[in-house]
Amino acid sequence: MKKFSPAISALIDALRVLPGVGQKTAQRMAFQLLDRQRDGAAHLAVALESALERVGRCNTCRTLSETPECPVCADPERASAGLLCIVESPADVIAVEQTGQFQGQYFVLMGRLSPLDGIGPADIGLDRLEERFQQGQVKEVILATNPTLEGDTTAHFIADMARRYQIQASRIAHGVPVGGELEYVDHTTLGHAFSGRKTVL
Amino acid sequence: MKKFSPAISALIDALRVLPGVGQKTAQRMAFQLLDRQRDGAAHLAVALESALERVGRCNTCRTLSETPECPVCADPERASAGLLCIVESPADVIAVEQTGQFQGQYFVLMGRLSPLDGIGPADIGLDRLEERFQQGQVKEVILATNPTLEGDTTAHFIADMARRYQIQASRIAHGVPVGGELEYVDHTTLGHAFSGRKTVL
Ligand SMILES: [Zn+2]
Ligand SMILES: [Zn+2]
Repeated sequence: MKKFSPAISALIDALRVLPGVGQKTAQRMAFQLLDRQRDGAAHLAVALESALERVGRCNTCRTLSETPECPVCADPERASAGLLCIVESPADVIAVEQTGQFQGQYFVLMGRLSPLDGIGPADIGLDRLEERFQQGQVKEVILATNPTLEGDTTAHFIADMARRYQIQASRIAHGVPVGGELEYVDHTTLGHAFSGRKTVL
Repeated sequence: MKKFSPAISALIDALRVLPGVGQKTAQRMAFQLLDRQRDGAAHLAVALESALERVGRCNTCRTLSETPECPVCADPERASAGLLCIVESPADVIAVEQTGQFQGQYFVLMGRLSPLDGIGPADIGLDRLEERFQQGQVKEVILATNPTLEGDTTAHFIADMARRYQIQASRIAHGVPVGGELEYVDHTTLGHAFSGRKTVL
């Protein structure tokens, strides 16, 4: 029984890094790329390398950015509202931006508190977030972490921290399905969740 | 409303070359690669370039191969049976090899006859296949084109050609779901289809 040649095997293995792609899908992708989509495959290799080289993190909010400050952080109008939305990942920033209902700034945790996995406040940048609270421009934080146990814990931890700086903290409303992931929610639902946010008591 | 930065947009577009990957999945893939899988993304770029450089086509059967002759064509034992299995794509060669039931050689059409799309006999290599029939080593062809209208038409066309050279032609048996694609059939079903093949009258 013949197996794949080395370069094809290596490509199949490499494709499995993609989310949701198992062995069978990776095989199908590799054959289609090498058989019928060679230009597309070459283009994909270049796009990957270019994005890896150019896309880093915003110095202020930590989202994915091609410039030291992302366009949102660099926009003075968006700073003026004093609103800071806290999310877990860069994909969540995009999801909130696509609602068109939020005109403030962001802070991206790049994760969530998870004591069992050894992920504490410093690992999700809460020291930097506290510095930002100390600067006094933030009037309200909107906690848009995912509605999971860890996301809720993280939201409460940040709400407590905000309270020490007399900053109002609100959690986005129900509408985001419990146990779901923010980035998969449709824009309308996520928009409702923003407008119906409640102060954390 | 903010959109993606240029390098991220370009990566999302490039990922859509993958089979079954739409805009939303491509966005999710791009963010995961840039956010959490940077090493995997760099590895994928290298694997793509390496495979494109190294993988070409077998001079004899036209399947994907890293050498001028693929391992199956280069194996004298597999030539000795005089059996030639005709398939539409390199993925079909792998599917048949995985049954472990076929010990002959292959010819890969890289498509199927489709007069409406202007795909005629020369476009699927039937001139080269006929040269092979003329050489006299082929005793039987097993027609393993997909059980679609065009696959059936192609099988009958090749069976007629084989008959002119006194070569027996058989079509793989039912077992492959009608309208289905060979490469997605499980090994057992495909093995039955091979053992139950019938002579084309
Ligand atoms: Zn930023
Ligand atoms: Zn070959």
